[in-house]
Amino acid sequence: MGPHPAVAAIRLAVRRVLHDVITECSEFESPDTERSRPTATGADRAAAPPPADRRPLVLVACSGGADSMALASALAFEARKLSVRAGAVTVDHGLQPGSDLRAAEVVSRLAAMRLDPVESVAVTVGRDGGPEAAARDARYAALDAAAERHGAAAVLLGHTRDDQAETVLLGLARGSGTRSLSGMAPVSGATGRYRRPFLQVDRQTARKACLVQAIPVWDDPHNADPAYTRSRLRHEGLPALEKALGKGVVEALARTAQLSRDDADALDAWAADAESAVRDDTGQLECAKLYALPPAVRRRVLRRAAVVAGAPAGSLFARHIEEVDRLITGWRGQGAINLPGRVEAQRQGGRLVIRQG
Amino acid sequence: MGPHPAVAAIRLAVRRVLHDVITECSEFESPDTERSRPTATGADRAAAPPPADRRPLVLVACSGGADSMALASALAFEARKLSVRAGAVTVDHGLQPGSDLRAAEVVSRLAAMRLDPVESVAVTVGRDGGPEAAARDARYAALDAAAERHGAAAVLLGHTRDDQAETVLLGLARGSGTRSLSGMAPVSGATGRYRRPFLQVDRQTARKACLVQAIPVWDDPHNADPAYTRSRLRHEGLPALEKALGKGVVEALARTAQLSRDDADALDAWAADAESAVRDDTGQLECAKLYALPPAVRRRVLRRAAVVAGAPAGSLFARHIEEVDRLITGWRGQGAINLPGRVEAQRQGGRLVIRQG
Repeated sequence: MGPHPAVAAIRLAVRRVLHDVITECSEFESPDTERSRPTATGADRAAAPPPADRRPLVLVACSGGADSMALASALAFEARKLSVRAGAVTVDHGLQPGSDLRAAEVVSRLAAMRLDPVESVAVTVGRDGGPEAAARDARYAALDAAAERHGAAAVLLGHTRDDQAETVLLGLARGSGTRSLSGMAPVSGATGRYRRPFLQVDRQTARKACLVQAIPVWDDPHNADPAYTRSRLRHEGLPALEKALGKGVVEALARTAQLSRDDADALDAWAADAESAVRDDTGQLECAKLYALPPAVRRRVLRRAAVVAGAPAGSLFARHIEEVDRLITGWRGQGAINLPGRVEAQRQGGRLVIRQG
Repeated sequence: MGPHPAVAAIRLAVRRVLHDVITECSEFESPDTERSRPTATGADRAAAPPPADRRPLVLVACSGGADSMALASALAFEARKLSVRAGAVTVDHGLQPGSDLRAAEVVSRLAAMRLDPVESVAVTVGRDGGPEAAARDARYAALDAAAERHGAAAVLLGHTRDDQAETVLLGLARGSGTRSLSGMAPVSGATGRYRRPFLQVDRQTARKACLVQAIPVWDDPHNADPAYTRSRLRHEGLPALEKALGKGVVEALARTAQLSRDDADALDAWAADAESAVRDDTGQLECAKLYALPPAVRRRVLRRAAVVAGAPAGSLFARHIEEVDRLITGWRGQGAINLPGRVEAQRQGGRLVIRQG
């Protein structure tokens, strides 16, 4: 008899990601190995020191909640069958009394799954960008450091399809277009270190998998605190949407994320190409060439140019870009447009000049 | 003292659209006039019959509800100041007892605004596609016929920013990507006949404009009937989302519509170009060239090819296209993929063959 369907589902999701990681590690390593030892013989190899464990290490970031405990259990199971070492990191945000004791308990549960290494990292959460953003920044800094320290090939994150749906709705509320609807990436981080195997797995499945494997889970009280936007969305916004639109909303939102990500990538690539094509010999943007671009591409080119000129990407909103766009599409002698970061955009003799004042 | 801000807002929105209509009509007409009468002289013109009223006619589609009554009032006001004739059509769907009397009352209110012509058109609503779609089909057929009959240059529709937000959420529930998030177009119909001046005006403003102008409005009981998806969305889904995400949700959804429309247009244009580039001399799709396209563009090319081969666009879902896509990106000797409309996709010797069986 096979495992419970929920357990089978989480293992399959993790197995797929581990296969990717293994493939990438071998692609990365084998040419190097061949190049550095082109004349290696049997005798050479025998003389070398006994090899360290060269299997890639995969870490799971684990809060002790159902999603990441399910992920840890699946990683522990699958790693044994593949050429992968599996470890875990739990981050103690120090935001609640007794969080250190909880972290220690999570560590012991993870160690009981025979994950190795397992460690708890205490962080200090700042205040920049609000409580959720500050906690996230501290957490990723700690995970990055742990990955470096252990030489991990990948760090698995337990975000589920439900988290993805919430993220899409949060992006929708910003109203800033296709990129903001693309949710969380299956692979992210500067080095592609972070992987999210559960983006197609729903929260209910993860919870069920813990239940049937008798894995105790911890419910973060923050997740039910209506002071947090995400929590309100989870407990009120999404259920109301499902009631109005039908049960498939979470799945539809997750699919929207994937389609939007591909669309945004393709348009960004187009804009990158177009940006060099619309510049004259001196590197100035030619208004006539900008005018000929599709609006979606032109606005991306303008956005890129504003960021290159020094406008902070996070403060540059759709309304800024629309105003700059009207220098191209609705020219009637407007003056310079002020953008964040003391950047100015103005039209001068058929050229669009964007620079810091 | 100027008009109430709500009245000013609806008039400005209509004025902008009328300017567009006038500009397009004059662009369309003047070359023709010059070409057909290149040698016209004062004497010729004096000898011609007295000219008919050549001002373009703009009709408003009016249900008697607040949105379209506000639109009718603004059209009546602005048309007097511009070179435009203004008329109105109300459609009697015959779905409620006494709907004919209500239509007659709407006609008399519209005539009181000095709109001319004003007419009521009775339609028979079928059952295809559900009650909402069937009513819409019957309505647009009647409006098309009325526009033809009167030679109208444009038909104004009263959809507001709130309607647009609801449409985006309905598209989101389909989960079929950027095009489905693009809501209603400001200009639509095969001939660009339909215009929606109120897509940036909220429902509250339209209602307020009726109130301060003492225009009686009719509240369609369907709009509050929880049997309709849109009504549930309006009265439960959207308010819950606003509670979770904050007051700007409607505006963000409307902006998403506009950005998504531009993005979808640009990607469709790219796919149209790419489609010819990936065909070989005999018109077959080359797998290697398809593989090199960005996923967002490739999937659009595959979709176009399936529709051209006879798959009904409305039955072709993202999962169908993904399966065909795996013939390109995950080739392991799969058999033919069945698509709606008895269309088959299969890989044959480096070519992707999509045809009706």
